[in-house]
Amino acid sequence: MTGYDAWCGVAHGCTRKLGMKICGRSILMHPFYTRDFCHDTNYTYLLPAKNGEEPTLQFLLEVVDILTNYIRKTFDRSTKVLDFHHPHQLLEGMEGFNLELSDQPESLEQILVDCRDTLKYGVRTGHPRFFNQLSTGLDIVGLAGEWLTSTANTNMFTYEIAPVFVLMEQLTLRKMREIVGWRDTEGDGIFSPGGAISNMYSVMVARYKYFPEVKTKGMSAAPRLVLFTSEHSHYSIKKASAALGFGTDNVILLNTDEKGRVIPADLEAKVIATKQKGYVPLYVNATAGTTVYGAFDPINEIADICEKYNIWLHVDGAWGGSLLMSRKHRHKLSGVERANSVTWNPHKMMGVPLQCSAILVRERGLLQGCNSMCAGYLFQPDKQYDVTYDTGDKAIQCGRHVDIFKFWLMWKAKGTTGFEQHIDKCLDLSAYLYNKIKNREGYKMVYDAEPQHTNVCFWYFPPSLRSLPEGEDKRERLHKVAPKIKAMMMESGSTMVGYQPQGDKVNFFRMVISNHAATRSDIDFLIDEIERLGHDL
Amino acid sequence: MTGYDAWCGVAHGCTRKLGMKICGRSILMHPFYTRDFCHDTNYTYLLPAKNGEEPTLQFLLEVVDILTNYIRKTFDRSTKVLDFHHPHQLLEGMEGFNLELSDQPESLEQILVDCRDTLKYGVRTGHPRFFNQLSTGLDIVGLAGEWLTSTANTNMFTYEIAPVFVLMEQLTLRKMREIVGWRDTEGDGIFSPGGAISNMYSVMVARYKYFPEVKTKGMSAAPRLVLFTSEHSHYSIKKASAALGFGTDNVILLNTDEKGRVIPADLEAKVIATKQKGYVPLYVNATAGTTVYGAFDPINEIADICEKYNIWLHVDGAWGGSLLMSRKHRHKLSGVERANSVTWNPHKMMGVPLQCSAILVRERGLLQGCNSMCAGYLFQPDKQYDVTYDTGDKAIQCGRHVDIFKFWLMWKAKGTTGFEQHIDKCLDLSAYLYNKIKNREGYKMVYDAEPQHTNVCFWYFPPSLRSLPEGEDKRERLHKVAPKIKAMMMESGSTMVGYQPQGDKVNFFRMVISNHAATRSDIDFLIDEIERLGHDL
Repeated sequence: MTGYDAWCGVAHGCTRKLGMKICGRSILMHPFYTRDFCHDTNYTYLLPAKNGEEPTLQFLLEVVDILTNYIRKTFDRSTKVLDFHHPHQLLEGMEGFNLELSDQPESLEQILVDCRDTLKYGVRTGHPRFFNQLSTGLDIVGLAGEWLTSTANTNMFTYEIAPVFVLMEQLTLRKMREIVGWRDTEGDGIFSPGGAISNMYSVMVARYKYFPEVKTKGMSAAPRLVLFTSEHSHYSIKKASAALGFGTDNVILLNTDEKGRVIPADLEAKVIATKQKGYVPLYVNATAGTTVYGAFDPINEIADICEKYNIWLHVDGAWGGSLLMSRKHRHKLSGVERANSVTWNPHKMMGVPLQCSAILVRERGLLQGCNSMCAGYLFQPDKQYDVTYDTGDKAIQCGRHVDIFKFWLMWKAKGTTGFEQHIDKCLDLSAYLYNKIKNREGYKMVYDAEPQHTNVCFWYFPPSLRSLPEGEDKRERLHKVAPKIKAMMMESGSTMVGYQPQGDKVNFFRMVISNHAATRSDIDFLIDEIERLGHDL
Repeated sequence: MTGYDAWCGVAHGCTRKLGMKICGRSILMHPFYTRDFCHDTNYTYLLPAKNGEEPTLQFLLEVVDILTNYIRKTFDRSTKVLDFHHPHQLLEGMEGFNLELSDQPESLEQILVDCRDTLKYGVRTGHPRFFNQLSTGLDIVGLAGEWLTSTANTNMFTYEIAPVFVLMEQLTLRKMREIVGWRDTEGDGIFSPGGAISNMYSVMVARYKYFPEVKTKGMSAAPRLVLFTSEHSHYSIKKASAALGFGTDNVILLNTDEKGRVIPADLEAKVIATKQKGYVPLYVNATAGTTVYGAFDPINEIADICEKYNIWLHVDGAWGGSLLMSRKHRHKLSGVERANSVTWNPHKMMGVPLQCSAILVRERGLLQGCNSMCAGYLFQPDKQYDVTYDTGDKAIQCGRHVDIFKFWLMWKAKGTTGFEQHIDKCLDLSAYLYNKIKNREGYKMVYDAEPQHTNVCFWYFPPSLRSLPEGEDKRERLHKVAPKIKAMMMESGSTMVGYQPQGDKVNFFRMVISNHAATRSDIDFLIDEIERLGHDL
């Protein structure tokens, strides 16, 4: 109930009047008539400082004001997606925005300027015309969840200091396993810092299942182990093989059909060849939604082979796993319930803020067995509560960020049906794009079929290329088109979309849609923009 | 400039009046006279919904109101540290707080209740009397930084979508390397999801330096590799050895003196014994600030041995690395500049919100060489900017959370000197505690010397135990004291402090101080509370 006016002046003789009396009960009841901090006011005025409540409240409200303005503009199509600058420009300093750190404190006034500038020179990943990544959009409830998470500032390793979050994680993982279709309730899982780590977990758990002695004796205790994954799969399988001591040479890439899906016969042939060499086929990764094409490997046929040869089946659904929430699209993952483990990133197709990735394991106990080290200072057996809720020892991390709350809160707010609508809408939009350009002049689809996910892959041919004869010269010129258009998009700040080569295919655009703010008009805008920028190339 | 009143009623016939006209420009200019959402209002009213600006603003301000009330109470010593409930109680549902997820959306009103309840049943890790973990406290500027980070919702893998954050990370890592004392500017580093992963990176990089062929050929391409670390070191070294394919048997634990510091002669003897067996000593971890005792291994003497035998030297300064910021205490890490890699977690002793951990590497290029897979869809070589700023390929992650901004913003706000003051203050407090109890009746220090870090390890003997003869019975009874007192602390919610056994030592309290809100009165309170709760045991 303490009043606060001109706290700045009271503190060190500054005479600027900075605020009105407030009672400190609820921020919603109080008008603030100024947004200036005195230039002498710094962090030492904030809590836990004596009389720090009001400056703290004022400071946080200033920050929230900056953030809500940013949010408003993010959804405003008249705002640019980004204000591009080269690294050397930002490093040299932009209009008083200096990235260098110093020995002395800056004023809170300057800190607020730094916050504004950080956002100003960043990229609006929630903008309806940001299509650059698999993770796009800005979900307001998820954002609120993340603000709360950082305010709670705790750690997932024990129930002791994260009771609510630990239970939320447990319940949510169980729900996800049910959606995968695992009947028994004895599965397991954990939220990890991203899909690459989730995939790494799957390889670790597979190895532990078949060769548990590797945990103590190392890879020399096992025969030569081989992993199989599609040539279109995510590079994290290779990263895991390098990190975990398999070696990238022991990752066998599987051939795909023209739509980017694994050819099961190729898997079986390679498994047989591996066995004939005396090596052990350990693990197959089937991708549900590849990164570039959005292809879904035929899980059932792959599962048949895995069962026949006793191989661990992982489904990397980092991108496509969310389609399990859609009654219309979940058939694309048919057979997923036969997998031994599944990666599923709610931070991609479900619009949950970064980071939120789950590794789900069908057999309970493997994660724990694989990773536990029983640290006495954290996992005391003589606590007063049921210590099976201390889940930290099954992680490869010790401290673990709370990734669950924002997701849990969004699920509460949207319901399963809300996620389903989100996913169906994004897939409808990609069908709209596909139908719009598949026969349009100057466009060529990278493969000739309706996309399975929201990925639409295509070349744009500027008029100057269209009449050229097929051949290396045309290919070379086409290869440069997407990077040039992308660079111009970024310079103008109008939109962003990804491109890449794939195999022997020269650079093409990969359009993906995961943002619930995107509409058909944004798709139209993207096409107009490609044509505007690319017309004279 | 759109007005907004009774948007709820306009939308679906509800007649409750919900808000005043606002102009939508700045939240600080507008009084809100109600904090009720209509029970029919749900997430579909929020952005990107048509006319979603005002409901979004209203919702976020309600959330911020909940959060600022929580923050205020966190610093209020009359508030409990926690309101303990057993897992089954929370799972059964507390007064309308239901953790289960459903198919249908909840109202925003209920979402706000869920937010309040989540905080209510959690643990206030920022409370001045929360001493349970190495990471405590709630830094207001760091919190603001994290709110901004989640609003920006981007990903560290490319400069393209995180230009400002990528540069901030680069500059901050360089500054940290300078503080370590590496003279050349050619070092490297990355922020990782916690100290365990940072330590894992150090082992990976050491392996790559000496046996780069492991990346492609697996561990079978290398001889038997051995890692050395203190018996008091963090369990993450063992976790890494299990995960990376070394095997925990190939981690040799080093003997320590009574203060928990590695005995260098023991290291040398074990290195020689390892070589005599034909194995290869690859890596030594010297801990700067052990988890339980807070001990600092003698880095210079260990470095001499590492140089003599050509072994990688890592310094795990997850807990103690921050002392490098203090002119008074940095001598405890003397020799750290001779290390090949250093783990340093600003989220511990420097009060940065979770997660914020850096792995620093003296030699540039190793992280990249070790982990790069050159994914074409992310790291296109034909971008218009200098792609050496696309740092994602040196991570084991693909997507990577922005952990840098809150740290950078805190550094701006506090300056190097502000961190120094924070650290010195916490160490002063631990000295105060040590001096208070070292000769106090009923207390016994676990080792007999002033602590090197803020860890103070001690037994409390209830009066009933004091006159017992030394022996197994007394040990068994003493072993139960700390868990019992801790359980009562949690039930009463008054404070939290850790305990554990270590080696042949029965359960003792480990007091640690990293919270800038703690004062001598809080130390006094802790001791009073131990005596109050433990007196009649």
